[in-house]
Amino acid sequence: MTDISVTRNLAEWIVALRAQDIPDAVRAEGLRTFVNWFGCAIGGANHVTADRAIAALAPFAGQPQAGVIGRGERTDVLHAALFNGITSHVLDYDDTHMKTIIHPAGPVASALMAVAGYRPVSGADLLDALIVGVEVECRIGNAVYPHHYDRGWHITGTAGVFGAAAAMSKLLGLDAERTTWALGIAATQSSGLREMFGTMCKSLHPGRAAQNGAAAAFLAEAGFDSSLRGIEAPRGFANVLSDKQDYTEILGDLGSRWEAALNSYKPFACGIVIHPTIDGCRQLRKQLGADVAGIASVQLTTHPLVLELTGKRRPQTGLETKFSVYHAAAVALLHGDGSPTAFTDEIALDPRVIALRDKVTATAGDIAEDEVRITLVMQDGRRIDHHVEHAIGSVERPLTNEELDDKFLRQSALVIGEEQTRDALDLAWKLPELASPAELVGATVPHPGGLVATVAR
Amino acid sequence: MTDISVTRNLAEWIVALRAQDIPDAVRAEGLRTFVNWFGCAIGGANHVTADRAIAALAPFAGQPQAGVIGRGERTDVLHAALFNGITSHVLDYDDTHMKTIIHPAGPVASALMAVAGYRPVSGADLLDALIVGVEVECRIGNAVYPHHYDRGWHITGTAGVFGAAAAMSKLLGLDAERTTWALGIAATQSSGLREMFGTMCKSLHPGRAAQNGAAAAFLAEAGFDSSLRGIEAPRGFANVLSDKQDYTEILGDLGSRWEAALNSYKPFACGIVIHPTIDGCRQLRKQLGADVAGIASVQLTTHPLVLELTGKRRPQTGLETKFSVYHAAAVALLHGDGSPTAFTDEIALDPRVIALRDKVTATAGDIAEDEVRITLVMQDGRRIDHHVEHAIGSVERPLTNEELDDKFLRQSALVIGEEQTRDALDLAWKLPELASPAELVGATVPHPGGLVATVAR
Repeated sequence: MTDISVTRNLAEWIVALRAQDIPDAVRAEGLRTFVNWFGCAIGGANHVTADRAIAALAPFAGQPQAGVIGRGERTDVLHAALFNGITSHVLDYDDTHMKTIIHPAGPVASALMAVAGYRPVSGADLLDALIVGVEVECRIGNAVYPHHYDRGWHITGTAGVFGAAAAMSKLLGLDAERTTWALGIAATQSSGLREMFGTMCKSLHPGRAAQNGAAAAFLAEAGFDSSLRGIEAPRGFANVLSDKQDYTEILGDLGSRWEAALNSYKPFACGIVIHPTIDGCRQLRKQLGADVAGIASVQLTTHPLVLELTGKRRPQTGLETKFSVYHAAAVALLHGDGSPTAFTDEIALDPRVIALRDKVTATAGDIAEDEVRITLVMQDGRRIDHHVEHAIGSVERPLTNEELDDKFLRQSALVIGEEQTRDALDLAWKLPELASPAELVGATVPHPGGLVATVAR
Repeated sequence: MTDISVTRNLAEWIVALRAQDIPDAVRAEGLRTFVNWFGCAIGGANHVTADRAIAALAPFAGQPQAGVIGRGERTDVLHAALFNGITSHVLDYDDTHMKTIIHPAGPVASALMAVAGYRPVSGADLLDALIVGVEVECRIGNAVYPHHYDRGWHITGTAGVFGAAAAMSKLLGLDAERTTWALGIAATQSSGLREMFGTMCKSLHPGRAAQNGAAAAFLAEAGFDSSLRGIEAPRGFANVLSDKQDYTEILGDLGSRWEAALNSYKPFACGIVIHPTIDGCRQLRKQLGADVAGIASVQLTTHPLVLELTGKRRPQTGLETKFSVYHAAAVALLHGDGSPTAFTDEIALDPRVIALRDKVTATAGDIAEDEVRITLVMQDGRRIDHHVEHAIGSVERPLTNEELDDKFLRQSALVIGEEQTRDALDLAWKLPELASPAELVGATVPHPGGLVATVAR
């Protein structure tokens, strides 16, 4: 398929797509993608990573064209895209396209919401552009995954910049030639190394993808040209950054197969390998009620990766608790919590949590990644066995809209308080009806004197 | 050498380097690098590529902290770095580190000059930071060249971002940890595909390198962290973007071997393969004087690449003349010119040039890339043989300072006129004595009513 004009054909599809071509089920998933992203952007708004990025770059920012979600600052469109991209990813709590491990919304929605206050755009058009962007980045990701990721690229950044460029091109109404240029300008800015995991640079990646993808569309709009074969040329994106190039993943079944419908949402604010354990412990807590106090021991049988990645026995800080399956199990049994409040500096040192945590043991078993077996032994001698076959948040057990609401409420309330959170959440679900979706950002500016907490890194 | 902390050790060298550690000869070459870059930034200032980039991005730019060289606009530091990086490279007329084909000054000097009006910095410190940045990017380039370039990376962009980050870290006085972070933030933004050659994106690469390298230093200054092993980690820059990693090129003989002393400067405003021909024809013109009118035929024997890359017989536009060795030979014989005025839309259609151009033939011979053999047959039957063993501008035959002056004058005069050009050139050579080097940018703002021409793309 190397003769086919991949970039150009993809651009033509983007341009030709009409609102009525998007199936209802895809649009419904797109709205869930948006709501989940919006809650994450509020939830991460006060993170020290965002504080430092804004402190460093605010002196160079432009006119107050767009607000930073969950904060008081207003800045230019490109910096707003960057900052929203950082905050929505910084808690590692956003969405996942499981086939590629791309976190799709950050690069795309962050760019779109930044431009919403600058150029007139309806909520319905913004939602459709979001779906286009997610579709494009996931298809490009599919074309190079897993080789590209295995080489060391953080695919949320490298594929994300295409998603932002595609979505912005759609929103700006660029023609096919300019959309092709925008994808090429995106290709030549594609970057982000997995070496940066565990540092502030990890969330810089979706931020820069949003910013550079938006800039790509604005440059193309002004006639700034690029190669017409940015994706598929011998020295283009796919060949230079990957050993695998499967262009049928990009062009095949466009408009009938929808990757954007396959998005999933993290139920818990930590690495996905602990999710089955938290899920199972939350179910046991419901079953036990006050009897939780009578637990004598907790035995976990997990996938081997769980112990390798999250085997920290005595976490001392909020950050360290995210790498302790023992801590996560204890907090889920005691409080039913897997949200950011389950991973703070305070709760790491809570005596009740520590007491239960020290009763948890874990062994690796022949078990799937989204599976766990839990055995509780009670002080009265009872033994309770529990099995989670597929953790919540997987494609097999997606979060319901109510569970998305609960996730939104728990993280957003920490930043802008519960009352304002409920208003913002209501408004987010109404995106397709909004004449001026920028009002969503305004709804997240913390009220003077309101609750503003700092989430532990 | 994979155990060695490459990034950290490089950062420690950057921080520890004192002004007196830079040998006089290296500093002298650094000043030539600066003067050449400055002339190129003026020369490219009115290019349509810069016009479009500025039109697209000016709406998002910040406070007027820095001027765009050769233009009237003032903008924020990061956008000034971007625009100066574009203009200084857009004519393909800048400098070359021959071992890596990096064009070193663009990413580094564009960032430094942008910050010079924003933070107090002396000309001497700016020059030393430029040398540090060029040294760092060329050493990192050496470590991965040629594998990295062969894979399809535009090394001026990918290595250039490290040079900008290093130079800015030095200028901002960052400590070793923050300089290490800045290099890591640079690593994770390293990008630029060779597929973009021949499009406006080619000069976007040094522009983004300057901008992102500067941002990396500002982010690190504010405590935004990154991996401490951005260059050498298994998922760091060198392993992900190259099949070759020779870290002795980065850390070996630091302070005694100076890559910054090996910079060279393009004498002519076109691809380097035609340079021997232009050089030889200019020498013949001096020898012939008015007898040039009596040329019956011109026979060139060149390296095979010359015909492959620049074999266009009848160029119709300024851009096309750059790919015609026949045109270049004719203009050099008639006018002694290889500057941007030799490659305009007007001269492509000049009857005298066309008449002589059609008398030129070229054949590929067993000859070096920087070599040419020229035979003139005169209308009176005389035959003149001429041989250029190493073209001017090569490491063996560097441009003199006077030749750099001539190059500067010819391209700058087209944009800001001859009088203002002479003042700007004088000032550029005085960089090490300037208390406020930002005045250099002011000296290039075109006077009202002055000559402002648009250079053909």
